[in-house]
Parts: sequence; structure tokens; C-alpha cells
Amino acid sequence: MTRTVLESKTKTAEIGFDAPFCVIGERINPTGRKKLAAEMEAGNFETVIKDAIEQTAAGANVLDVNAGVVFNSNPNPNETEPPLLVETIRQVQAVSDLPICIDSSVTGAIEAALEVVEGRPLINSTTAEEEKMEAILPLVAKYKVPVVAICNDETGISEDPDVRFAVAKRIVERAADYGIPAADIVVDPLLMPIGAMASAGQQVFALVRRLREELKVNTTCGASNVSFGLPNRHGINAAFLPMAIGAGMTSAIMNPCREAEMNAVRAANLLMNHDEGGMNWIRTNREGGGDMSAAGEAGGRRGGRRRRG
Amino acid sequence: MTRTVLESKTKTAEIGFDAPFCVIGERINPTGRKKLAAEMEAGNFETVIKDAIEQTAAGANVLDVNAGVVFNSNPNPNETEPPLLVETIRQVQAVSDLPICIDSSVTGAIEAALEVVEGRPLINSTTAEEEKMEAILPLVAKYKVPVVAICNDETGISEDPDVRFAVAKRIVERAADYGIPAADIVVDPLLMPIGAMASAGQQVFALVRRLREELKVNTTCGASNVSFGLPNRHGINAAFLPMAIGAGMTSAIMNPCREAEMNAVRAANLLMNHDEGGMNWIRTNREGGGDMSAAGEAGGRRGGRRRRG
Repeated sequence: MTRTVLESKTKTAEIGFDAPFCVIGERINPTGRKKLAAEMEAGNFETVIKDAIEQTAAGANVLDVNAGVVFNSNPNPNETEPPLLVETIRQVQAVSDLPICIDSSVTGAIEAALEVVEGRPLINSTTAEEEKMEAILPLVAKYKVPVVAICNDETGISEDPDVRFAVAKRIVERAADYGIPAADIVVDPLLMPIGAMASAGQQVFALVRRLREELKVNTTCGASNVSFGLPNRHGINAAFLPMAIGAGMTSAIMNPCREAEMNAVRAANLLMNHDEGGMNWIRTNREGGGDMSAAGEAGGRRGGRRRRG
Repeated sequence: MTRTVLESKTKTAEIGFDAPFCVIGERINPTGRKKLAAEMEAGNFETVIKDAIEQTAAGANVLDVNAGVVFNSNPNPNETEPPLLVETIRQVQAVSDLPICIDSSVTGAIEAALEVVEGRPLINSTTAEEEKMEAILPLVAKYKVPVVAICNDETGISEDPDVRFAVAKRIVERAADYGIPAADIVVDPLLMPIGAMASAGQQVFALVRRLREELKVNTTCGASNVSFGLPNRHGINAAFLPMAIGAGMTSAIMNPCREAEMNAVRAANLLMNHDEGGMNWIRTNREGGGDMSAAGEAGGRRGGRRRRG
């Protein structure tokens, strides 16, 4: 059974076929958050700290940390991003004991972060682009850490799931050349908005099953993207997550502060028998009563309908 | 692709691999509803009519009708249930145009109901018990209607999913002897409460997939049973339904008046690409804005994460 192990100084998080779904908190990311970007450029980490504390309290298992600020004072991220990412990680580690997911498109920033991060982080990410793999995979091998592998290459993102599977396979094989085991590759099959591609959900469910059965890899995705452009996005996300978990997806980059989605994940863990004794469900949903022993005595309710002929 | 076609006088409902999930409204059932049972025995159909109207408005596709009242005046259901079931169906048909699911453990009541029901009903149910199959399957063949097949036999309900699959297969084969096609058998794999059996969810998902792939049959279940005895049952049910739909389940006997569960079904239909143009989702979730054309223009958001290196 595939297990990807992440660590902070004091805590272990596991992404695995037999583990509860791993929630990677997405909030610490200035992309598309102008106010946060301005704060971070100014060396103000108040929102970063608040987001770290809130996501940890909400039940995230790992915190994604992205410092992709385009500085007004210096447009070269190769200069600005490494020290900013290092400082952001330091600030997060000071208030949260969760493992870190180092999220950057700047190789120098990832390398600088690897030097200061505590424990065993997840690197986010490589693609199948040759240049990208040549930059990232040696770091993954050197630091013996796991990496997110995104199913696109120089030609972009294929709409054909067979092509995306082949792209994932290429990354796994190339990683093996560097001595990186498949258990340290977490494949992101790329989830499209169903508003743009009606088959996007089914496609990802089928792809996740194949990635798991044939490549034996863990999987992740940016979960909320599926509902982009549609009304009641939380309602769609809260159905997507259990379906993805049922198909075998083992983690997602998502907002743990959204209760509808988080409770859907907890319920799916329970239904996958990844919540021993239902303790996590009961602890987080105690109001409304009920306990497992009551259910255990429910012999007469077996089969569920009210009467049998 | 397997299709089970149900009809009322004016409407068609389809249970099918390529169709939206079929919601069979469970409310019209006096078992465990003392007040309703007393009303029905007294010839008062106010609650029946109310339940029929409400479930139809809530979006049910089929209405289950059960008249299993144990009369205080006469303990023999073979005498009391046929006329009561006939009258209950008449009352329901007067206020709802949905196809009917005739739900009884009394063969004479099913036969009487078949004489008066309009269109093509679903019979609920047979098991693999010899006596039951010999009573029900000739009726199914004679009236050329579909039937729910419950995965238990004289030995009870097996905890082993392989045994339950074999039981389903036995019913399908016996039905074939009567000329009944597999498309007219809707198998209920029997959903246990996860509080009593922690693997019950996974077991049913695996069983549904096998029933679909190997026996080519539609499936159903009493959905709410999964959460029996646990807190926040709606939260569990609302995750179970999308997972079951993702695994290939094609209908459920459930309460359509529960918004959390119904919206989970709608979202799952959307994610399975069984909601053309997202029209049903958008119509029922309009507040909050958004439309498919906006999503279709979201080329830049494809792949969902905020930035790619």
C-alpha cells in the first residue's frame, strides 16, 4: 500500500491508500490575493500567521506555502522569492506544527526553502516539461522528499485522459532514474472546471483509479476548480470530494476553513473505513446525538428498509 | 447500456447507467409511523396526499407506496392490505404524475395493486428466498414490469459481499427462466449501517461496481440506513450518495424532502455528466450567481491552481 510520509518537527502526515484523506491547506498563497501580496512584499506576515493558525485549527493535515509575490520594487522573482519564501515558512512554522508543502515555480526558492524547512516537506511541483524535471527532480532526490507531479508537458494540458496518464507515467519513470520511488510522487491529474468540460469529473475519477492501480501513486488536485463559474460552488465541491475519495484520490489542495467541504471529507473518511470507530466524525459532529454502540446494537435495522416480507 | 423504464399515465422515469440518479421517494410508508398507520386504517389519506405532493415538488422521480398497516381490527394483512394498497395508490395517482413503486410483502396486495396502477410500476420486492421468487417472479413476468431484487435468501443477509453478489446472480438467473430481462431487475445490495459494520460503505461501492459490470443490472438501496445511530446523519448521507453514484449506483429509496441529500444527488449528477448543460443544477441553485458560459470562458483557470511554473 502506497504511503507518502510528510513530517514537521513534531508531527507526521501521511498520504496513503489506507489513510484518511490528506487535506493540504491552500490559503497561504498571494496569487490572486492583492492585499496579502502587498502585505508580504512589505514584510508584514499578519495574514500569513492568521491563515496558518486558522487552517491548523480547522483540521488541515499539511499547509501549502506559496510566496509568489510579484514585487513592485523588483520584477525578478528569482531574486525576491527565495528570501520571501524562506521567511514565510519560518513564520508559519512558528505558529503551526503541521508539515509544509513548498509551493513555488522558482527553483531557487524551492532550494532555499528546503534548507530551512523542518522535517520532511512536500515539493509543489514538477510537470513533465524537460526543463522543469531537470530542475526539480535532482532536488527531490538530494533532499529525499516527495513531490507533486502535474500531468502537463511542453504541449500543455491534454483533454485526453490517456495522454495525461502517459504524462504522469513519464514523470514517474524519469523520477525512478533519479532513484525517487513512486511512493514519493503525488500525481495531480489536473481537474478542469466541469463548466468548461462536462466530462471533467468522470475523467478525473477514471484517471485517479488508473494512476492508483497501474502506477501505484498517490494523487492530489486543486479541488475547488471543479466548480469554477457555477452557482453554489460549495455544494458541488462537497459532492466532488467524496466522489474523488471513493475513486481513490488520497489528498487535495483545498480550503480547510470551508465547513461544507471539510465535513464532506470527514464523512467520506468514515464511509471508506478510514476513521477508526468513527471517532473523528463523532468528535466533530457530536451535536445531534448518537454513538457507534447504539448503531452496533441495531441488528433489527440491518438492511435498512423498514420491513422485509 | 442498461435502462429500466418506469411509467405513470403521463410520465416516464428511467433508471439507467447513463441517466441522472433516480430518486424513489420513501415517505408513503406507515411502518414506524404510528400516526400515519392509524390514519390509513381509518381511511384518512390526508398525510398520504401531503407526502405525495411534497415529494413530487421536491424532485422525486418515482414514489414508493407502502400500505403495510397492521390493523387493530384485523391482524391478517392478506385481507387488509390489498384493498388498502389499492386505495392508497389511487389517492397518490390523483395528486402526482410520478410512476409508482409498489412496496409490499403481501403478494396479494402487489397483485391487486398491479391491476389498478397506471403505467409501468416498479415492484418492491423479491428476495432470493424460493417461496418469494415463486410468488413474485410470475407476477413480474405476467405484467412485464421491473422488480427490486434484495440480496438475501433463506439464510438471511450475508456479511460477505461475494455471497451477496451470488445471491443477486441467482435472482437474475431465475428471472431469466421466466423471460424477465436483467434490465428489469434493480438489485438492492443491502446497505448496512456503518456504525454496525465499518466496512459497509466500501463493501456496497465494490458490490455496485460488480453488479453493474458483471450482471449489467441497475441498483438501488435504502440510502439513509448507512448513517443509522450516528450524529449528523444528513452529513453522512450527503457524502454517501455521491460516492454510491460515483461507484455506479443508479437509484435510491430515500427522502427527497431532505435538501442536503437531494442537492448532493444533483451535484453528483452534474459531476457524472448526467445534467446536460448543468441546467438542473443551475435552476435549483441559481442564487449565488454563475453560469456555464462564464465557466466555458475560463480557459486561464484550467488545471485549477493559481499559477503554473
